[in-house]
Amino acid sequence: MDSTDVIVVGGGVIGLAIAWEATRTGRRVVVVDPAPGSGASHAAAGMLAAVSEYHYQEEGLLGLMLESARAWPEFADGVGAGCGYLGTPTLCLAFDPADRQALADLRAVQEAHGLDVRPLSLREARTREPLIAPSLAGAFEIPADHQVDPRRLTASLVDALTAEHGPGAVLRSRAESLVADGPGTGIAGVRLEDGRVLRAPETVVANGLGARGLGGLPVELPLRPVHGDILRLRVPERLRPLLDSTVRGLVRGRPVYIVPREDGTAVIGATQREDGAEGVLAGGVYELLRDAQALVPAVAELELLEATARARPGTPDNAPLLGRVRAHDGGGHVPGLIVATGFFRHGVLLAPAAARVVLGLLDGHADPRWEAFLPDRFAPAGRAAAAAHGGT
Amino acid sequence: MDSTDVIVVGGGVIGLAIAWEATRTGRRVVVVDPAPGSGASHAAAGMLAAVSEYHYQEEGLLGLMLESARAWPEFADGVGAGCGYLGTPTLCLAFDPADRQALADLRAVQEAHGLDVRPLSLREARTREPLIAPSLAGAFEIPADHQVDPRRLTASLVDALTAEHGPGAVLRSRAESLVADGPGTGIAGVRLEDGRVLRAPETVVANGLGARGLGGLPVELPLRPVHGDILRLRVPERLRPLLDSTVRGLVRGRPVYIVPREDGTAVIGATQREDGAEGVLAGGVYELLRDAQALVPAVAELELLEATARARPGTPDNAPLLGRVRAHDGGGHVPGLIVATGFFRHGVLLAPAAARVVLGLLDGHADPRWEAFLPDRFAPAGRAAAAAHGGT
Repeated sequence: MDSTDVIVVGGGVIGLAIAWEATRTGRRVVVVDPAPGSGASHAAAGMLAAVSEYHYQEEGLLGLMLESARAWPEFADGVGAGCGYLGTPTLCLAFDPADRQALADLRAVQEAHGLDVRPLSLREARTREPLIAPSLAGAFEIPADHQVDPRRLTASLVDALTAEHGPGAVLRSRAESLVADGPGTGIAGVRLEDGRVLRAPETVVANGLGARGLGGLPVELPLRPVHGDILRLRVPERLRPLLDSTVRGLVRGRPVYIVPREDGTAVIGATQREDGAEGVLAGGVYELLRDAQALVPAVAELELLEATARARPGTPDNAPLLGRVRAHDGGGHVPGLIVATGFFRHGVLLAPAAARVVLGLLDGHADPRWEAFLPDRFAPAGRAAAAAHGGT
Repeated sequence: MDSTDVIVVGGGVIGLAIAWEATRTGRRVVVVDPAPGSGASHAAAGMLAAVSEYHYQEEGLLGLMLESARAWPEFADGVGAGCGYLGTPTLCLAFDPADRQALADLRAVQEAHGLDVRPLSLREARTREPLIAPSLAGAFEIPADHQVDPRRLTASLVDALTAEHGPGAVLRSRAESLVADGPGTGIAGVRLEDGRVLRAPETVVANGLGARGLGGLPVELPLRPVHGDILRLRVPERLRPLLDSTVRGLVRGRPVYIVPREDGTAVIGATQREDGAEGVLAGGVYELLRDAQALVPAVAELELLEATARARPGTPDNAPLLGRVRAHDGGGHVPGLIVATGFFRHGVLLAPAAARVVLGLLDGHADPRWEAFLPDRFAPAGRAAAAAHGGT
């Protein structure tokens, strides 16, 4: 094998996007994942919803989300049409007056941040989407929130990487730990589960929640699993298209979304729970179907193809862990290591931005705008450093 | 291959039970099915519910159901413990006062037929089953309604037949048509999809809805698909046992049941719809989960393992098509042919009775009690006969 420039641990949307963008700058990249695209990316609906996913007091994150949303068309173009990127708008619906008030309050803050959220009359909303319920309380259009199909995206990226570097570009193996050549020397590569060591000048840790099980990290990453249930359904021919827009809504205070796909399927999601249960929760499926039907009654007539549960990588502030890890002396960083995990609900949207940030770091440039996401921001002072100097 | 005494077309619970009982009388039997146990039997919950499945004005069917319920313990004994027969009772719950009244009215008729349906106080019901909802309107115990696991049953029967006759006992092939040697000579066997002809003195048509596609039948069988959605769930350790009894109930007039299995799973069913949609209906899943939670709130915390849809073989009077086919001259029957299909919701319960009836016919005895189920009872006079004399 030729020498590797960058090892990316993790073959979800984040790791694959980083690997792909690094490849496009001429680097030799190897992605290490036992089952690429099978984690949180497998469940994700693929909404590129910088605007409608805005939450109060997440201004820092908003900047990164908007940056990534703007990067998406070009990124999708680079990957190819196979990734299922669609520039269709998002329709945001309120089930009852309290839901309308909550969305209107949020809109005031969204507008204050320059986000484009347009109130629609219910008549206008039903003209655009005839199958939404007649009795809703309010509607808003968000033209900038688009969608992609995460399963097609990860498959396209694996194909693109393999076409570029050969079948070894995506190594079906688990990275057991980072390796260092000695105390204070930085990260030199990864040890695989079969004992082999893969070496490269740069290693990117992008394996989502899997980073918790990765040995040799010079910082403790405060990741927690936030499970979600999500449904995939087939729209019968007589009801197609079910929707042209992505529909999001609040139903008695509970968020739900319906993402229509070009292939006649739809995705309904997603619960958010921290009960640790790995399987699909019956109560979650029930609530998704109930609330989706409240917005679009014809959901009852769809065929349920799949119910999936996955854990998202949550962090204490629900913002990513993205950047280099500061070294003990405070003057520099642990050489050879970049962290890109903790993308929580936003991995698909943030993939192009994450790739740009990592590319900058590979080129020696840290963008000061994203300092708030440094991966050691939660580490007790000195703790990260102590670990960094302990070697592996 | 030794000569075959009986060909059974169809390897669901009915066909396999018939084949097994015929085998136990020393006959050589071949079951023909491309995928045994994969049809309606694959979906079935396996309630042996002669009492709670009683419907108004189905007295004729009731007799056969009770006969079969009584035959079940011995039948299960013959198949072996692997079939998952459990003698646990059924608890019948009413969600609201109207549901209670409906169940009480039905109970009056059930008692008039000598069926044992015992009213319980809600306190008694909750003592037996602590996880049922506290706010229900009524409860009844039906001690005689037991359960079996249809998937384990069909697998056990296939194993038992194979152990007896070798791997050829269950032929993975589709029977294309019945064959006759000439006009008026009766049925001599079946032609398989690969063109081979299998011959035997007796052929039993027991392939459920598949009988609609079987050529050469001397009578038109008025079967229609009644689709149903059914769920399989895993009970988390902390909630085991979810229930000891099978729970059935009416929830605002809608029937739902929860069948607890020994392996920590539970079955929730079942919708009944004639929309022809083959897939699992989202609205059906929603209603099952909603109504099951109304009876047992902890259902929300189960893991959804599987949502399945299958078509049951319905008939105009929802009673089976069971017996020989009358010949043109009215004096006898089409030789070599027995029909056993159209068991609708009751295939699992009725399997032992169906096997007994067919055994009797093989021995030359028609039980006059079951004349109401003759398979040509809906055929226009003379039509069956004409077909019988036309050969194939």
